[in-house]
Amino acid sequence: MNQNNFLVIMAGGAGTRFWPISRNNNPKQFHDVLGTGKTLLQQSAYRFRYVCPLENIFVVTSQQYVEIVKEQLPYLSDNQVLAEPFRRNTAPCIAYACYKIGVINPNANIIISPADHIILDEPEFENRVNICLDAAANSTNLFTLGITPTRPDTGYGYIKFEKSVTEVKKVDQFLEKPNLENAIKFIESGDYVWNAGIFIWNLPTFKNTFGKLMPEMADRFQKGASYYFTENEADFINNNYLECENISIDYALLEKATNVCVVFGNFGWSDLGTWKSLHDVSEKDGNNNVVDGQVEIFETKNSIIKTPKELLAVVQGLDGYIVAFHNNVLMICKKEEEQNVKKFVEIAQKINEEFI
Amino acid sequence: MNQNNFLVIMAGGAGTRFWPISRNNNPKQFHDVLGTGKTLLQQSAYRFRYVCPLENIFVVTSQQYVEIVKEQLPYLSDNQVLAEPFRRNTAPCIAYACYKIGVINPNANIIISPADHIILDEPEFENRVNICLDAAANSTNLFTLGITPTRPDTGYGYIKFEKSVTEVKKVDQFLEKPNLENAIKFIESGDYVWNAGIFIWNLPTFKNTFGKLMPEMADRFQKGASYYFTENEADFINNNYLECENISIDYALLEKATNVCVVFGNFGWSDLGTWKSLHDVSEKDGNNNVVDGQVEIFETKNSIIKTPKELLAVVQGLDGYIVAFHNNVLMICKKEEEQNVKKFVEIAQKINEEFI
Repeated sequence: MNQNNFLVIMAGGAGTRFWPISRNNNPKQFHDVLGTGKTLLQQSAYRFRYVCPLENIFVVTSQQYVEIVKEQLPYLSDNQVLAEPFRRNTAPCIAYACYKIGVINPNANIIISPADHIILDEPEFENRVNICLDAAANSTNLFTLGITPTRPDTGYGYIKFEKSVTEVKKVDQFLEKPNLENAIKFIESGDYVWNAGIFIWNLPTFKNTFGKLMPEMADRFQKGASYYFTENEADFINNNYLECENISIDYALLEKATNVCVVFGNFGWSDLGTWKSLHDVSEKDGNNNVVDGQVEIFETKNSIIKTPKELLAVVQGLDGYIVAFHNNVLMICKKEEEQNVKKFVEIAQKINEEFI
Repeated sequence: MNQNNFLVIMAGGAGTRFWPISRNNNPKQFHDVLGTGKTLLQQSAYRFRYVCPLENIFVVTSQQYVEIVKEQLPYLSDNQVLAEPFRRNTAPCIAYACYKIGVINPNANIIISPADHIILDEPEFENRVNICLDAAANSTNLFTLGITPTRPDTGYGYIKFEKSVTEVKKVDQFLEKPNLENAIKFIESGDYVWNAGIFIWNLPTFKNTFGKLMPEMADRFQKGASYYFTENEADFINNNYLECENISIDYALLEKATNVCVVFGNFGWSDLGTWKSLHDVSEKDGNNNVVDGQVEIFETKNSIIKTPKELLAVVQGLDGYIVAFHNNVLMICKKEEEQNVKKFVEIAQKINEEFI
C-alpha cells in the first residue's frame, strides 16, 4: 500500500433530507442506513482499506459529532479527527485537512470523500481510485470521479468532458443540477457524467491551484502549519474558521480551475441524497418494498418502511410511500412527494428543536 | 334521585378491535378515546349522575383491571368493584352483579351498561333510561334500549319490535348481525332498531326469568349471597366463576325470554366497535380527518391519525387510512380494511405478548 496515500472523509453534514431518521444530533452518515452492519461513515473508511493506511485517514466533522466519529472509527487518533467549530461548506473543510496533512507529508496523494455516499461495486471503485491516484502523483492535475449516467437524473450535478481514448479525460465544464430537458440532452450526447463529489489530487497541485483561486483561505490554512498536531490546533481553528468564506470546493476550486480531469466508471454509486435513492440501492421484497425493522406488511408495494427494531409496525394497503419512525418522530409521505421533507423539517424545528 | 336505582358497568372487555391503541393491559374503556378529558369508563358512570346514586354503582371487570377502575372511579368502595377471575362473557358477569346487589336491595332497579360505548345526547338518553326504569319498577318485563337505525349497518344486532303507540314496545325477536340485503330490508320495514346492549330491569323480574332460563347459574350466584360484601366473596367467586357457562346475556336470557320490551330513541349512541365508528362520532377537520396527537397533516383526507402527544407525526398524502401509534406498536391500515385488525392482533401476539 502506498504510504503517500491519504484519505479525507467529510462527515460534518446534517443530512436533513433523510429526516426523521437522520437527525441533528445523529445525522445519516452515522447510521447503518442499508442494514449492512456498518454505518455509512464506517463503510466510507472501510472501502479504502486496500488503498490507504489507517493512520492516513482524516475525518473532518462538526464539533458536536467528534465523539460519534471516534466511537465509530476507534482506530483513529485524536489528531485524525478534525473538528469544525462552525459549518462552513466544503472548501474550508477540505483546505483545513489538506494543509494539516501537508505538515506530515508535503507530497501526499489525497482522496476527498463524503461520509454518506454508498458504493456497491467496491473492486471497480478501487480500480478507478487507483487510476486517479497514479495520474495525480504524476501530473499537475486535479481529479474527480464521474459516474456513467443511467438516467436523466435532475438531482445530480453533471461534468462535461473532452472526448479521448484514455481513461483520464480532461474536464470541459461542471454543470449544476439541470432541468429534465437538459438532463435528457446530456445523456443523449454521451459527453457528460455525474459529478460524484469524490476528488483526488496530490498536495503540491492542490496547494498551487487553491492558492491561486482562493489566496486568502489558502494563506490562512498555510499559517496554521505551526499549530497543526499541537495542543494549540483547536484554538487556531476556533479563531480562524468563522473568517473563512462559506463556499463549496466545487465553486471555489473545481469549476474555476483549468487543470481538472475526470475518470469515470459504473461502480454502483449513490449519494443517498433522497429517500428514492435509498429505495433504488436497497434490497427489496417481491413487491418492491424496502423494509427495515420489525414490520408486518400486507397489500403494500413500492414503499420504504423504516422503523426501530423494538417497535412492531403493521402496514396495510400502501403504494409508493415512505414510512419512517425514529426517536420521537413519525413521518408518512408519498415517495413522489419527498421534496416536502425539507418543509417538514422546518415545521418540526419551529415546534421543538428536539424533533430535528 | 331514586335510591332504588343501581348501575352495573361491564368493564372487563379486551377491546382488541381498537388495537394498537386498546391493549391487553389497558383496553379502550380506560382510554379517553374522544379526547373529552374523561375515559370511556368515566363517561359511562358520569352519564348516569342524575339517575343513580354513586354508592349504587357497581363495576365488573377483570382481576387485572381492578386497580385501573379504582383509579379512574376513586369514589367507588372496594365492594363496588367486582373482579372476574376469568373472562366468562356477559351472562356470569351480570348475574354476579345482580345477585350481589340483591343482598343490599332485593327490589333494586338495575341498569346494565357497557363501559365502552358513547352517548352524545345525554339528556335524551337519560329520558329514555328513566322511561325504562319506571316501566321496569311497575312490571314484570325486562327492558332493553334500542337505537333508531340511520343506515343499514351490518355491524350491529337488530331488534324486531311489535308496533304500538306507546314508548314501550314488546320485543318480537332479537336478530344477530345481518347481511347487507337483510339490513336494508330491516331499515325499510321500520320494524327494527339496533340493539344497544343496555338493559334495565328490576331485580325480582330478573331473578325470576334468569332462574327459569339459566337455573344452574342462577342457583350458583344465589348461593353466593352469604359471601357477598364479606371477606370471603373473592374466594367464593374464584371457586365458582370458572364453572359458569361462557355465554352472553343476549343468548342466555334476552333472546329466549318472552317478557322483553324495548324503548328506543336517537341519542347519539355508538358502541365504538370499529375505527370507522370512532371516525363517525369524532370531531373532524375540514378534510374529514380525525386527528388526535401532535400531528402535522398535508394533502390528507378521510383519515384517523391517533398518536401520543409527545410524538411528532407528519402525515402527507393519505386518503382513508387509520394511523395509530401506541406504546410499541404502529399500525397503518386502510379504513375500509379495518376488519384486518383482528388478524394483526393474532400476528402480533405470536411475535410477542407485549405487542397486544
